[in-house]
Parts: sequence; structure tokens; C-alpha cells
Amino acid sequence: MLLFKSLAQKATASRSLFLNSSFSIRNSSTMFPENKLRFIPTSGTYPLGFFAGSLCCGIKKTLRNDLTFIYSSTPCTASAAFTKNLVKAAPVTFDKSLLDNVKASGTPTIRAVVVNSGVANAVTGIVGMANCEKMANAADKLMELCDKDSKNPIVSSSSSSLNKTLVMSTGVIGQQLPIEKIVSGISNLQGKLGSDHEHWFQAALGFMTTDTFPKIITKRLQLPSGKGSFNLCGIAKGAGMIHPNMATLLSSVFTDASISQAALDNALSYAVDLSFNSITVDGDTSTNDTITVLANGQASTSTGNKWEIQLENDPDFDFFKTSLAEFLKELAILVVRDGEGATKFIEINVTNAGSTEDAKKIAKSIANSPLVKTAFYGQDANWGRILCATGYSYPSSFNPDTVCLYLVPKDGSPQLPLLVNGQPIPFDEARASEILKPEDISILIDLGISKHSATVYTCDLSHEYVNINGSYRS
Amino acid sequence: MLLFKSLAQKATASRSLFLNSSFSIRNSSTMFPENKLRFIPTSGTYPLGFFAGSLCCGIKKTLRNDLTFIYSSTPCTASAAFTKNLVKAAPVTFDKSLLDNVKASGTPTIRAVVVNSGVANAVTGIVGMANCEKMANAADKLMELCDKDSKNPIVSSSSSSLNKTLVMSTGVIGQQLPIEKIVSGISNLQGKLGSDHEHWFQAALGFMTTDTFPKIITKRLQLPSGKGSFNLCGIAKGAGMIHPNMATLLSSVFTDASISQAALDNALSYAVDLSFNSITVDGDTSTNDTITVLANGQASTSTGNKWEIQLENDPDFDFFKTSLAEFLKELAILVVRDGEGATKFIEINVTNAGSTEDAKKIAKSIANSPLVKTAFYGQDANWGRILCATGYSYPSSFNPDTVCLYLVPKDGSPQLPLLVNGQPIPFDEARASEILKPEDISILIDLGISKHSATVYTCDLSHEYVNINGSYRS
Repeated sequence: MLLFKSLAQKATASRSLFLNSSFSIRNSSTMFPENKLRFIPTSGTYPLGFFAGSLCCGIKKTLRNDLTFIYSSTPCTASAAFTKNLVKAAPVTFDKSLLDNVKASGTPTIRAVVVNSGVANAVTGIVGMANCEKMANAADKLMELCDKDSKNPIVSSSSSSLNKTLVMSTGVIGQQLPIEKIVSGISNLQGKLGSDHEHWFQAALGFMTTDTFPKIITKRLQLPSGKGSFNLCGIAKGAGMIHPNMATLLSSVFTDASISQAALDNALSYAVDLSFNSITVDGDTSTNDTITVLANGQASTSTGNKWEIQLENDPDFDFFKTSLAEFLKELAILVVRDGEGATKFIEINVTNAGSTEDAKKIAKSIANSPLVKTAFYGQDANWGRILCATGYSYPSSFNPDTVCLYLVPKDGSPQLPLLVNGQPIPFDEARASEILKPEDISILIDLGISKHSATVYTCDLSHEYVNINGSYRS
Repeated sequence: MLLFKSLAQKATASRSLFLNSSFSIRNSSTMFPENKLRFIPTSGTYPLGFFAGSLCCGIKKTLRNDLTFIYSSTPCTASAAFTKNLVKAAPVTFDKSLLDNVKASGTPTIRAVVVNSGVANAVTGIVGMANCEKMANAADKLMELCDKDSKNPIVSSSSSSLNKTLVMSTGVIGQQLPIEKIVSGISNLQGKLGSDHEHWFQAALGFMTTDTFPKIITKRLQLPSGKGSFNLCGIAKGAGMIHPNMATLLSSVFTDASISQAALDNALSYAVDLSFNSITVDGDTSTNDTITVLANGQASTSTGNKWEIQLENDPDFDFFKTSLAEFLKELAILVVRDGEGATKFIEINVTNAGSTEDAKKIAKSIANSPLVKTAFYGQDANWGRILCATGYSYPSSFNPDTVCLYLVPKDGSPQLPLLVNGQPIPFDEARASEILKPEDISILIDLGISKHSATVYTCDLSHEYVNINGSYRS
């Protein structure tokens, strides 16, 4: 508790600092909710060789950061996962094709991501695709200028004609980007990019739409082989249309680890399944869901000992994969904590299911039920709704007579059984209310069939959700 | 408009009447919303040979009708459809088994339905099953007494030991029925059953939970063969946990038509698909969804000309099937109009899809999207959310470049195109707001692929929905 208080104070101090710094573009209106300050870091261990910056170029009606650019001084191994929605935003199509071409060329050339918030560039036809290219071209040009300005200019390893920047957009669907504002905004970022915490923090602010706080985390990890260590930085945004079917609406991870293309692709796919694909705010799978990972290898090249994580026969790979999954889970949880109108963070654990697929299907069905979500909002142990949502998720194995249902207090005190072997258990309503009072709630559904399990994270459905979404465009 | 006003006045007058009648059990607190009065009939053409009644036996905390009994003076051909939720309430299991046994016996013996509201008798184990039997036994006993009291006692056509009454329950999941109250409530109905509009109206009141008005409709129909005519009466209840996967949470239809078992089963299955299975309030498929149809044939036996509708080679069958579908659709629409917290009634038409299944899948996905529902609540033409929900419904055929999207004004004025062949169309926001202002809203999604279509009915997601469901049990 003391720690949180101190962090919160630091965050406040840190924000005041930004307001006076040269690149803090009229963020004086930025106020984060008191109970979220503990999730806003005041420092970080950032990956080597990356430079970040953000500004307000005038896409959003409010004067908040809406354009972020992050680049590596050297080419990166790049991997990404995209929405499975059949309606795909232009940047999704653009990035997918760019990454395919880069992989086909056999030479890693991607170095940057450029992100705008406010307009999603989704359902924008040919103009939308052309605007992606304009954004990527402007970003590539900025990077060239930055390379020239650099004290240690790095000779590009490739003369490829492919773009070097991945493009991401988030915001309202069906509107064209104000592309002139964005292109001139990108060029205005020259001289404003850096590798300090403040630069990264501003970059995270530029990802936000209806988010109430920026989501940015970092981690420094030691390879188990002892070959070296590396840094991870992840940024994400929520806060509505969140039911990722590949990744949430925009997340970017940057690392100075050295890793092969095959290993990075495999690790990302594994990690996304356990993190972003295990959260839901409203059951709406966005048209723009994108997560990118850029690995520039500078943690290896900056030392005498060169290393590269490989997919096969490399004990470091399992470590990287598991660490990335844990890291993305932490980031995904922040997205849920900031779900539109959320007052509760709810962990739904399904155990002893017939298959992992069944367990996840049940957990997601519960997580998306408006009746379950409103019951949690009302701090009401209305477990019938949970069981009902279990039943209509139609798992392949289900036995009503072996289902158990518990409230799991987050303070470590004993679980409160509500249903045991399909039979309702008379329970202490006062105790249930006590367990449902804190922000963090956990429930356990034990199917009693086999040994498979899954965890899904979600939030409640509040009056504020209706406020936000009843008037989002206006 | 004048008509509605007059109907409303009639409904008010009619309610005053009930308050003074002997069987109006403390319904003085019953007030229906002004804008729903036009859906409350003040008279009806009820099927011959059925008798209805309702009272408050003390299940609900408020003093409203919570126990309804409707019986036929002669055995009926009976058919029913039930929830597909894997968690099935005790009455669902009870009725399904009873109907199977009746069908196996080859002799129609069902004569009645008994319905309680307030407690759903779901997830109640062995006690719950025993309570179903107690309810059915009490109802059968009441019916025997009524038969003896009758001026024209009908000799039962069967000495079957099977129950003659179908049981339905609706309300909170996981609580046991107050069975003593219910059993004595059933016996208290003796002498209070009748066939007037007032009796049926009270019966419909007894179905209600969070419904704001009773749902009861009647129709008199002439067989195209000229053999005769018959009457239909339908009662339904909403208003949450409505995403029927077979039928809504409790609906009963009574008819004096004479129809074979095979023909009735076939007609019900057809009609349910086009009506109750095409509506959704919150995407939550209940544990109790049940629709029953009882056909006593008295429209035929009461005349000299005996007739019975047959499944094969009978032109009257198609007429009956289509009429039943239209009738159930009317009833289902009332359930949507009274969706929890609903301020809008929304018709979602999907046309030119690759298959009927695709069309329905898309329409349901749009109907269940919290983002779409809140946008309609806010009267916001945020069509990107509609297209997004189309994309993540994953139809088997979809082409983003042929999709068109229109707002369809209910006053017959021209449609407002928002998206044509995948391209956003600049539209008049003021005109869109005008179209989205009335209670009734209609949208059209033309996929431009093949010739299949579907219509789904839903309501919006309002602050009131959160009010209701944040504190349902308390």
C-alpha cells in the first residue's frame, strides 16, 4: 500500500515534469483516475537502440497525443498477429502484405512503427490503402533524416525498396485519415525522438483513445544459458471493441533480444494465445486488432558475446516464449483493467474441463454475458447467470452433476463454494458481498470432467460503459 | 394515433375493472408504461374449451400474480420446444419426459399448463424435479375438481397414469420453489377459472418477471379449404436472458384447432425458427426457454363438420404453419419491445447472403453487439460498429467490396445509404438522427453475394438495463 502511494506520487510528479517539457504537447487536460495511478510506471528498462516520440497533430478533437513513432537504429526481426475479423482495416492489410514481402525477401528490413489514434482507417477503400503508404513513406523519410543526424550513423543493411515502417491506426471506423495533418505531424517529430522514459511514456499516450491511462510496461531478463540479457518494452491500448481474435486493438512490443524469424513468430503466436486472446471487454472483435514485435538484437551486438535465440534445440527459446507470454499477459490485463466503464477486474478460471478449447469457450461465454457482467457491477453473487452462460457455450463435454462453482477471495482466505457437484450450497450472502467488493474478483468453475483449464480476464458492465458508447462519435 | 389513444384509455379502464374484480389479487401496484399501453389488448377471440386463471401465492416479493393455470376441458394434441442450454431447468426436463411418454402411449392426454414466476426451479437437483411433479399433481387434482363442477362433465378419454399438466417456471436460478405456497395456491384457484378476456389477461400477468407489460395476443383464422375456422391465443414473457435457442423463456399457445401430432410438431418447429429463434435481448440463452402449444380440437368438434389438419397432402397445413409463424413472430416482437431497459425496437435485415444460415448469423452478431446496441441507444449512426459485428460473425461467404448498409425509415421515406459496395457514403447526419429518433428502427445489410436473407429483432442497451441487472436478486 505504501509502495502504491509512493508510486502514485511519483507518477504525479512525473506528469508535472512532462507538462513543462518541450515535447509535452498540451497534455494539461490529461488526468488519470486515482485508482489507476499504481499501473503507470515512472521509470523503465528500455531496449537498446530504439527511439520514441509522440505529439498531437490534430486528429483528435481534444489536444492529446494522437501520433506516435518508434524506430530502431538497426533493422529488426519483425513478427505480428492481426484481427481475424473479415472486415480488416487498411493498416492490417498493409502490414500483413509488407511483412509477407519482407519474409519472402529473406532480409529483415523493418525498423519502425507509426501509430495514430482518433481514426481507425477501417472501411476506407482505396484511399485508405494509399494513406497507409503515405504514412509509411513519411515515417521512412523521417528515419532517414534521423540516421543522418545520428552521431553514429548506421549503414542500412539493405537497399530494399520495401517500406521499413509498420502502420497502425485506431479510432472511429469509416472515416478517412486527415492524411496531410499526419504526414506533417510525422516530419514535426524530427528532433523530438529519444530513448528516455519520458519519450516512451509520451509514445504510450499517443496510443490512447477511450483509455483512461497509458499502458506501458518494461522488463529486463537474463537468458538461462547465461549468454546474455535483454530488455522488453510493451505498449497497448484498449478500451472498447475488445475481444481480440489474434491481438487487441493495437499493441507493440520492442526488444533488443537477438532472435531468429522462426523463433519470434512461434513465440508470438504462443504468447498471444495466452494473453490478448484470453481477454474480453465487450465481445466485439475489432477490425484493427494488431500486435507487432520488433527485435533489433542490439542486446547481443552491443556486447562482445554474440548470441541469437533459435527455434530448435535452444533452451533459451522456451524461456523467451514463456517470458513473452507472461509479459503480454501483464499488458493485456492492463487493457482489461481499463475496459470502457470498468469498475471490476474479473478473473475467470475454468478447470478440469474435457479440453483446453472447452475451458476457454466456457470462460469466454461467462466473460461476455451481459447478465454476468452487470451482476458483478452490482456486487451480486448471482451464480445462476454464471452457470447459465456455461451451459449455452455448448462445450463438447459437460456434466451438470459434476460442476462446482466458487468465489475466490483475492486475500488468500478460503474459497466460498456456491455450487458443489451441481447442487446449490446455502452460502453466507454477507461473506459473498465482502468478496465481491474489491476491484479484483476471481471465480472458479470446476467442471470435474478431465484435466484441462483456461483463464480469461474481463471487466464488468457499468452505467459508464453505456455513457461512453451511447455517444462515442459525438 | 387516435386509435392508440383510445386503446390506451380502454386498457386503463380495463385495468380499473380488474382491480375491483374478485380474482384481481392486489394488482393495484401494476402500472404499465404509457408507450406500451397500445400493445395491451382489451378483448380477444379466445379458443373454445380453455379456462384460465391466476393469483398471487406469495413467490414474488411484490404482491403480483405469480401463479397461472390454463386448462382445456378435453385432452389436447401437445407440442413443445425447449432451450438447448446444457444447463436445463427441472421443468424443462420434466415436460420433455412427460411429452415423450405421452407420444409413446399414442393417446393425447395433456390438458393444461401451470406456470409460476419468481423462481426458475433451475439448478435445483432432485428436490427441483420432485417439486415439478408436486406442481403437476396439484394441477391435475384441481382439474379433476373442475371437471366434477362442470355442468357438462367430460369423461376423460384415457385412464393414463401420466400427468395431464405441463409445468413451467421462470425467475431466479438456483433457488428452490416455495412448493407449499404453490400447491395451496393451485387449490385456491378453484372457482376462479374462466374463459373471459379478464381471466386470460390475469393469466398473462402471472407469467411476468421483469416484464413491464403482459404479452397476450389472439387471432381468429379461417381454413383455406373452407372446412372451418379456429382461434389462437398466445402468452409470452421476457424480458432478460433472452436469446432463445428453441424458444423464449416461457410462451404458451392455446388453440381450438384440430390437428394431428405430426402436423403440430412440424408447424411448431417451423414457426419457432422464424419467431422466437430470431430475437435477442442480451445474447443470454436461458436455462428455462420453453414454448408449448395445446390444441384441443374443439373448433372442429363443436360443429357438425369434423376436420383435422394433417401433415401430408393437406392444403390447410401450409396455412396453419405460416399462420402460426406469423402469430409467434408477433408474440416474439412483444418480448423484444419489452427487453430489459429497452428504449428502441430494432429490426435487422440481412439480404443477399450466401445462405440463410449466414444471413441469420450476421444479423444475430449485430443484434448482440454491445457497441451496436449502445450506439442505437445514443441514436448515433455509428455504422462502423455494425460492419465490424458483421465481420466477426465469420459467415462462410463474405466480400467487403459488395456490402451495402442502409438506415430504413419506418415512415416509408427513402432509405439512407451509409455504405455502398464497401465504400463509405457521406451522409446527412441530421437526417440520420431523425431516422434514429423514433422507437422503431430498421437497418438493412445487403451482402451482394447470393439471394438468401434473414431478419432478427432486438432492442438497445440502456442505462436502465444496467440498473435492472446490477440488482436483480435484491
